[in-house]
Amino acid sequence: ISGLAFKVWMFLKRAWDMGVNDPKKLIHCIKVGLALAIVSLFYFMRPLYDGVGGNAMWAVMTVVVVFEQTVGATLYKCLNRVCGTCLAGFLAVGLHWVANRSGESFEPFVVGASVFLLASVATFSRLIPSAKSLFDYGAMIFILTFSFVAVSGYRVDKLFDKAHQRISTIIIGTSLCIIVIMIVCPIWSGQELHSLIVRNMDKLADSLDEPILPIMVSGCVTQYFNHRGVCTNSNEEADKKLQGYKCVLSSKASEESMANFARWEPSHGRFNFRHPWKQYLKIGASMRSCAYRIEALSSCINSEKQAAEFIKKHLSISCLKVSSSSSSTIRELAETVKTMKKSSTIDLLVGEMNTAVQELQNDLKSLSYLLNPSTIPENKKMKTSMEATATVPLMEIIPVVTLASILIEIAVRIEALVGAVKELAKLAD
Amino acid sequence: ISGLAFKVWMFLKRAWDMGVNDPKKLIHCIKVGLALAIVSLFYFMRPLYDGVGGNAMWAVMTVVVVFEQTVGATLYKCLNRVCGTCLAGFLAVGLHWVANRSGESFEPFVVGASVFLLASVATFSRLIPSAKSLFDYGAMIFILTFSFVAVSGYRVDKLFDKAHQRISTIIIGTSLCIIVIMIVCPIWSGQELHSLIVRNMDKLADSLDEPILPIMVSGCVTQYFNHRGVCTNSNEEADKKLQGYKCVLSSKASEESMANFARWEPSHGRFNFRHPWKQYLKIGASMRSCAYRIEALSSCINSEKQAAEFIKKHLSISCLKVSSSSSSTIRELAETVKTMKKSSTIDLLVGEMNTAVQELQNDLKSLSYLLNPSTIPENKKMKTSMEATATVPLMEIIPVVTLASILIEIAVRIEALVGAVKELAKLAD
Repeated sequence: ISGLAFKVWMFLKRAWDMGVNDPKKLIHCIKVGLALAIVSLFYFMRPLYDGVGGNAMWAVMTVVVVFEQTVGATLYKCLNRVCGTCLAGFLAVGLHWVANRSGESFEPFVVGASVFLLASVATFSRLIPSAKSLFDYGAMIFILTFSFVAVSGYRVDKLFDKAHQRISTIIIGTSLCIIVIMIVCPIWSGQELHSLIVRNMDKLADSLDEPILPIMVSGCVTQYFNHRGVCTNSNEEADKKLQGYKCVLSSKASEESMANFARWEPSHGRFNFRHPWKQYLKIGASMRSCAYRIEALSSCINSEKQAAEFIKKHLSISCLKVSSSSSSTIRELAETVKTMKKSSTIDLLVGEMNTAVQELQNDLKSLSYLLNPSTIPENKKMKTSMEATATVPLMEIIPVVTLASILIEIAVRIEALVGAVKELAKLAD
Repeated sequence: ISGLAFKVWMFLKRAWDMGVNDPKKLIHCIKVGLALAIVSLFYFMRPLYDGVGGNAMWAVMTVVVVFEQTVGATLYKCLNRVCGTCLAGFLAVGLHWVANRSGESFEPFVVGASVFLLASVATFSRLIPSAKSLFDYGAMIFILTFSFVAVSGYRVDKLFDKAHQRISTIIIGTSLCIIVIMIVCPIWSGQELHSLIVRNMDKLADSLDEPILPIMVSGCVTQYFNHRGVCTNSNEEADKKLQGYKCVLSSKASEESMANFARWEPSHGRFNFRHPWKQYLKIGASMRSCAYRIEALSSCINSEKQAAEFIKKHLSISCLKVSSSSSSTIRELAETVKTMKKSSTIDLLVGEMNTAVQELQNDLKSLSYLLNPSTIPENKKMKTSMEATATVPLMEIIPVVTLASILIEIAVRIEALVGAVKELAKLAD
């Protein structure tokens, strides 16, 4: 029992921490409670109760099922619910009329067959990906209302009244939800998607290279080249920052659902109604392709094979330059997206990154002279002759060379990312 | 208008193709229709209709909302619905009793405040990840039923009857769903997860290396080394196979939801009730980490930098050996998981793969002799002297060397994957 109590205690503690860390979730909970308390007035106030003919329960139900965390998701569900109900209501009333004409004994068969058929077709439409993102919920409501009205038409007399009341209570419920969700601390899917993208960019930049701030953390590349030096970042927080790119790897699903809901939202903040949300998905894909390379980089850094110190030293300056310049390019990109302003320095930073890549490539080229002194051009001989005395087996070069070529790869992906962000700026104009 | 008609036509055509390619979806649609037609009998047959006191609509509604594609998902929703309804019903009846005692004028406030409070708390529990996977739907039903019964208690007299009827109709609806979903061509989440993992393994193996069959396709590594040779695989299907690993990259979400539903399923096929579904997630993660390396491999292969032909030739045999042996290891693993039998050859194949990796590493080592002939040991001088006449700049070696080290990396990940599969075999025993 004490084990169970401990588990419950831990669960409550985690829940409390979550609430404290993420006040948005708490606000959402309070909003749900508020909306339900308001809709209860339809029971408590006699004129309202009579106004909807005692069908207030549909309004309560609507509030419970359509109230979502973001404005977009709620609007999507509200519109789907209203459209699905109306369409199904009209069809069901039409069917009822036809079934009535077909005679008493045939009626159950006509109704049953049509319920079977329409439910199957509507379920099928829910399985088609392009339709699913638009009206998955609507199709479910369609099946619900249709079978409801069509079947109960067999026993209930005032079918028109019933359909009319159901539709009007649903409209009351959805309007209430829309009012509450848009007035009380609204959380917009679009805004969330926007900040997710910015946050992920910052995480990518952190994984590559961290500016040396009070806590003295540094990116994974710096860590690699300083391996034998002072280990300033053995603490957990720094490790967490280095692992930040992993969030980018697995954020596809949430980006897609946010973009899907964002298109239902009206103009809010700095976003218009038809903001190019799809371009955010492209930026996300571009970031993921960067993150795959960072994953390769980190596995290369953590591999057991050690490179020769002297080669590491030879390449360290240019490698660090590439990683820091690509990191600051991403950081500037994140700033651009965040402020939604054209950056004056982005082209400069990309140029700097490309210069750094060029330098790294030159350093790689000069490595071959180190390995094979006979090919050194005369004028360079003096400079490198001192280092060339050491002959290094290829196996000790491979890790550094692989690291360098992955870094160059990353720089290429970042250029693609810059292109995607520029495209977004153009589309949003 | 013709554009719209064309769009609709294309949509219908796509839907038709989907139905033909995936008969499971069609069967699901028919099952939904069937379940709804059966539940309609509660309206059409007088004794049944009277039996549930005219509340048959709850049974219809239950069928519409809980019927899902897989047995696991349906069971999850059914259990959640029944538990949520019962718990909320008891609490609401208790509340009603308390509110009744507090006097006519206080009653709305007591009821309203408790609805607000419980709805907020239940909504909060839906946001906690560990709770979400267990009773997200149940919490929603709890809120729904509670606000329903508590609030309508203010107007409806026979509260006990109402709660009792609601619960019994929900039990009728859920039982019907469970019977239909388990008897008519059941689709099991566990089985689906199992085949998804097997399918993804095959895709990984295909991306690495394709056995030369009638269609004459070959893996990306083969393609790279035969680049200047006969291009046998320019057709679309082969390209699709090479891109197969991309499915593995993005299958995390579906694996998790399937594993989540699978734990609700009773023993089915070769799976027991408490089959180690979580281990499948570990295997999935292990496969994704392989896929990240294959992504790096493919970007390395598609990069513009060309390697020196002569270096390529030097490494091609051992690279191809590594890729083909790792591919056949994955294929054997897929077979093991598929048949759920211990493989007699897997250790042999892993050994073969490791030998191939060792050979590749030796070849890499010998590369340094090629580059720097002065270091060749006397006994090997004869063999390589012919080739050593060509001096190759390092820049032309880097692409091949990077490719080789990524291949070695992949072999390491595959060993981890083998370990995960063995762990599964042990747990499932």
